[in-house]
Amino acid sequence: MSMETIKHLLRPSESKIVLMVMDGLGGLPLEPGGLTELETANTPYMDHLATEGTLGQTIPIRPGITPGSGPAHLSLFGYDPLVYDIGRGTLEAVGVGVKVNKGDVAARGNFCSVDEKGIITDRRAGRIPSDEAEKVVDKLKVVKVPGVETEVRHVKEYRFAVVMRGEGLEPEVEDTDPQITGVAPLTARARNPKSEYAAGLFNQWIAQAQQIIKNEPKANGLTLRGFATHPGLASFMDVYGLRAACVAVYPMYRGVSELVGMDIISVQGETTQDEFAALARVWKDYDFFFVHIKKTDSKGEDGDFAGKSAFIETVDAAMPKLLELNPDVLIITGDHSTPARLRVHSWHPVPFLLWAPATARPDDQTRFGERDCAHGGFGTISAMDAMPLALAHALRLNKYGA
Amino acid sequence: MSMETIKHLLRPSESKIVLMVMDGLGGLPLEPGGLTELETANTPYMDHLATEGTLGQTIPIRPGITPGSGPAHLSLFGYDPLVYDIGRGTLEAVGVGVKVNKGDVAARGNFCSVDEKGIITDRRAGRIPSDEAEKVVDKLKVVKVPGVETEVRHVKEYRFAVVMRGEGLEPEVEDTDPQITGVAPLTARARNPKSEYAAGLFNQWIAQAQQIIKNEPKANGLTLRGFATHPGLASFMDVYGLRAACVAVYPMYRGVSELVGMDIISVQGETTQDEFAALARVWKDYDFFFVHIKKTDSKGEDGDFAGKSAFIETVDAAMPKLLELNPDVLIITGDHSTPARLRVHSWHPVPFLLWAPATARPDDQTRFGERDCAHGGFGTISAMDAMPLALAHALRLNKYGA
Repeated sequence: MSMETIKHLLRPSESKIVLMVMDGLGGLPLEPGGLTELETANTPYMDHLATEGTLGQTIPIRPGITPGSGPAHLSLFGYDPLVYDIGRGTLEAVGVGVKVNKGDVAARGNFCSVDEKGIITDRRAGRIPSDEAEKVVDKLKVVKVPGVETEVRHVKEYRFAVVMRGEGLEPEVEDTDPQITGVAPLTARARNPKSEYAAGLFNQWIAQAQQIIKNEPKANGLTLRGFATHPGLASFMDVYGLRAACVAVYPMYRGVSELVGMDIISVQGETTQDEFAALARVWKDYDFFFVHIKKTDSKGEDGDFAGKSAFIETVDAAMPKLLELNPDVLIITGDHSTPARLRVHSWHPVPFLLWAPATARPDDQTRFGERDCAHGGFGTISAMDAMPLALAHALRLNKYGA
Repeated sequence: MSMETIKHLLRPSESKIVLMVMDGLGGLPLEPGGLTELETANTPYMDHLATEGTLGQTIPIRPGITPGSGPAHLSLFGYDPLVYDIGRGTLEAVGVGVKVNKGDVAARGNFCSVDEKGIITDRRAGRIPSDEAEKVVDKLKVVKVPGVETEVRHVKEYRFAVVMRGEGLEPEVEDTDPQITGVAPLTARARNPKSEYAAGLFNQWIAQAQQIIKNEPKANGLTLRGFATHPGLASFMDVYGLRAACVAVYPMYRGVSELVGMDIISVQGETTQDEFAALARVWKDYDFFFVHIKKTDSKGEDGDFAGKSAFIETVDAAMPKLLELNPDVLIITGDHSTPARLRVHSWHPVPFLLWAPATARPDDQTRFGERDCAHGGFGTISAMDAMPLALAHALRLNKYGA
């Protein structure tokens, strides 16, 4: 359903919706016919919610298509990821709290190691620790390019973000990261004439920055990629009438949430318990809560099947803290699958659980797992259906037509 | 997912994909609540693959829409059959090895029997045997129409194909087959002014041909239909990066495969075993293998429920020959349903089985049959999702977005 149509159906309500996303939740068995990570985990609370609620499985983009984190979250938030594109640079920048407004151009930066001829010997500067890299980024703050304002911020380890602000900037600029070692970083090249001004300014920025860091022990070179501007997404308040809060520990998810107009709630600590505590703290102030839980994905990418299962159990154990808030609608799902077996994001459908004590129709499923979800009452749906379903079960939508 | 997007996500891989299509596979029980042809068949190999793999059911075009063979295969190959249209004439011609290039116009020809006034008495010339009809077609090779080149080729029994090549030809020409007996064949009429030139040339061809065959005992008349040109489809190499091979016995399926750039592999014999032997012979040379098995459809059209079931069992028994090649992805499905009970193609969803030992997510289904497929892990999908799913499970697609 188009956002414009949803918007016209909105009705006021005091109901509260929680969208809890366990990143990379979907999995695969280690052996044909076996259980997945989620199916292996002992999850009494989620199973109880599954029994009372409705299960389904979501397709993040289209069948067979593996999503990156940006498109996967856009889809869950109801924005067609084939229409809206958040560049990596923008995501990275907003994720560490650097504003990217319309007309700005953001890029993701990587420190690298180069030899005396400027040839890249390590694309990640020996995976320089965050505390060392942060000091190098601090030195780059003095770089000034005429006619524009620049802001640079450390992200994590060898990664940083640069944002350029001024008139006439366009983001169609090629990556300077050659993606291989043994060659020098590339020059920032415009993909069209309108972007030549920005490309030229970024090359000036790079030249000055390179001069400043040339004697660093590890991070003596840099590359930029993912040049992008603000994606111009309508806000959650505009399209859904929701005062929306984001509870997330990782920068990227805070970033994409901010781009759709969510308030970013500070979290003391990094555990699920900490996230739920942050949510409880602001429960009265918002209608919608996006809770992002990262470690399911990290464990999957590590190939740690048992660790992913065990982590899911810790999330389940934390559920009482969330449930005692009495949400009207609670969705538990993932943004995509990250099977430990594959160690990467995958295209497999994603388990989806919607619990709404007043409005959910139970199916016959009693466990929160891939097989039960494949047989759930929602069937196989697009991740883009999550928000309309959440609003409906929260009684926040009028009927369509007379 | 658009083909253009798929193309941008392709990544190199050595993996091999087999798409095995049992024509008209889907069926119906003879009595309410009974088993279908496929459910009746004893298929231990396919059931094992179903247990390890993922099931689903495909919609060839849209729910309720019965496809012809051309659109059904286009859809399985990932080409939207509501966008791309292969005319029957083109299919018929390329199916017997007559090239149809852009700008050519092809038509399907039927011999018929006519009385002394030219009135059709039998639309299929008494189902004249192939060896007799072939001789009549040979006589037609002398027909010459000024300004164009024509090629005529026998297809099967009363059927033949004509292709006209030259400048300024357009295929919007009405059938000359009136679809009933008791009237004369129609004149080839253009649907628009641009096609009048071609219609006139075909009428000249028909007049000369009619003169040549007027004294034949059975095939003393003819009709043309399905005027069409090359559909201009992008090739499997272009859109999927796949070296693709077609293993099919029937002309039409070889034809549609050739139109999407597959190499046509010669098959010694006509059995499934023969087809698998042909596939094995070229296993090293290709990435993708389309295997077409016709008799499921023929038995369905004959209303032969038991025969269709029994034939499915012979296919199952041949599976070891295919499995010993160790495909990375094996899809077993149909292009549409042909229930023996209805004796024609139908709109019912089509059983779909994807087996991929390294990447498929098992569901709880253990039998390859319509009921299990309806409850499978893929849910109900478009036949157009088959290729993206095949590529994904073969690890031939990068992720979409960062």
